Amino acid sequence: MEKFEVTILGCGSATPSPKHYTSSQVVEIRGKLFMVDCGEGTQIQLRRSRVAFARINHIFISHLHGDHCFGLLGMVSSFGLLGRTAPLYIHAPAELEPMLQQEMDFYCRDLEFQVKFQGFDPAETAVIYEDRSLTVTAFPLRHRVPCSGFLFREKPTADHLDRAVADYYGVPQWDYNRIKDGGYFTTKDGTIIPHASLTKPAAPVRSYAYCCDTAYNPAMIPVITGTDLIYHDCTYSAEDADRARKHFHSTATDAARTAAAARAGKLVLGHFSARYTDENILLEEARCIFPDTILAKENLTVTI
Amino acid sequence: MEKFEVTILGCGSATPSPKHYTSSQVVEIRGKLFMVDCGEGTQIQLRRSRVAFARINHIFISHLHGDHCFGLLGMVSSFGLLGRTAPLYIHAPAELEPMLQQEMDFYCRDLEFQVKFQGFDPAETAVIYEDRSLTVTAFPLRHRVPCSGFLFREKPTADHLDRAVADYYGVPQWDYNRIKDGGYFTTKDGTIIPHASLTKPAAPVRSYAYCCDTAYNPAMIPVITGTDLIYHDCTYSAEDADRARKHFHSTATDAARTAAAARAGKLVLGHFSARYTDENILLEEARCIFPDTILAKENLTVTI
Repeated sequence: MEKFEVTILGCGSATPSPKHYTSSQVVEIRGKLFMVDCGEGTQIQLRRSRVAFARINHIFISHLHGDHCFGLLGMVSSFGLLGRTAPLYIHAPAELEPMLQQEMDFYCRDLEFQVKFQGFDPAETAVIYEDRSLTVTAFPLRHRVPCSGFLFREKPTADHLDRAVADYYGVPQWDYNRIKDGGYFTTKDGTIIPHASLTKPAAPVRSYAYCCDTAYNPAMIPVITGTDLIYHDCTYSAEDADRARKHFHSTATDAARTAAAARAGKLVLGHFSARYTDENILLEEARCIFPDTILAKENLTVTI
Repeated sequence: MEKFEVTILGCGSATPSPKHYTSSQVVEIRGKLFMVDCGEGTQIQLRRSRVAFARINHIFISHLHGDHCFGLLGMVSSFGLLGRTAPLYIHAPAELEPMLQQEMDFYCRDLEFQVKFQGFDPAETAVIYEDRSLTVTAFPLRHRVPCSGFLFREKPTADHLDRAVADYYGVPQWDYNRIKDGGYFTTKDGTIIPHASLTKPAAPVRSYAYCCDTAYNPAMIPVITGTDLIYHDCTYSAEDADRARKHFHSTATDAARTAAAARAGKLVLGHFSARYTDENILLEEARCIFPDTILAKENLTVTI
């Protein structure tokens, strides 16, 4: 099966902590690398990870708080120093563009690659990236400023032809694709061989949802239902629920309720407040509701 | 003797490396903390050091390359999150102000402290900060963009009164300050007691020069002559002198020649290119010319 994995570069919240970097991660799907958020120090973390700088062509920014985007200018600048020539696509709330353009005009005058800004509206649920094998859907989260989650989802592939069965019934080679795409076959004597007999089902479609930063947000459940992996805001424990509500962040309970309601495969908790010296209290809280939960940490890679 | 020390937070050059952070350091003089340069990740490094965030009231920026200032916005933003109320003074080339103001208007809307921008002209040698016990002088370096070095220098203090001698000659208490400041004393019988007999010399004035980024720059020698400690650009070894000239950086040899010509007390090499896996070749090269040389490293504190 082709690679689909998420590598955490930073999973702390905004207040600086000696333990965590601010938000950033890299999603690798079928050989393509996508960065999600880019807090200060992302390029430092990237250099320490096994992720190849040059293979990142798309950066998605969830919202315009510093702990999710202050590393962007440094990334662009370092791509320049490292001799990048391929275009870099930055998918972010549209209001970032004039600010970023001004910063690049000031600090990154001689880039030998193009930065292609792809603004989106965080109030809308929309496919903001698509290629042959994948879509990325942005969907609204509930935060103090407009903020999007991102759903990375493979496109369904055709079923696999069962070659031995096909040969037995005399299916000609030029007819393979039609059958893989769902067709049946009629033998010379008029017998209909159904699609299911001629094929093995395609690998199931895999998906990953990044939901950070957000208060408890049941409105997004329909978008992320059935997702294999959810990364969810878990800034606070239930004891600090008032604080979570005030700052439009989630508790471990909120994250776990969301994963359970979405019938997710697995939950990764992240965006930890610096106040918890032992994040296991967050993990235990979430596991009471959604057992298949883990804590994010820097350089952790989760395979889907 | 009161504290005068320099703590290195980052001593790498612009290209990201897994080994070093970009430029930043904290100078502590007589209980006051001054930050010099603020590359990306400075606040992360600061959190890992023993330096107290809240005690930094002045940040000096040498020049407007990202590896010396991309951490500034994150610092301002985190000062806000940490509940700072005291004004923060940013001393930087004047052209930074409109850019920084715009960024702060965008990202740091509700600060409860004032950011006071103190622009200077990097083409001039000038005292840009002064208090009761200290001056900071900016002086021009030779770099691709306008760039300043900074000389931190204690003000001379009055000599100490030798109380036993003063009592012996009957110096009245109200006359102490005049004598400490250089006066002599006339006894009742008309004998003149010279200043030197009544006092012990004040502690010598200490100083520190930050010279980064710069090509070999003999023009600055008069400004930094006699400095106790010099931190100098040492991006390359002499073998890469062509590269150093091209990028307006120094070799270890350049740094050591500067320290020798300035009759410095000690030299700290920094701003290392990521190309040297073993920086001891830089150290050995410099020590041939200026033996009292050390390599900077993250979290190193040098006492003056």
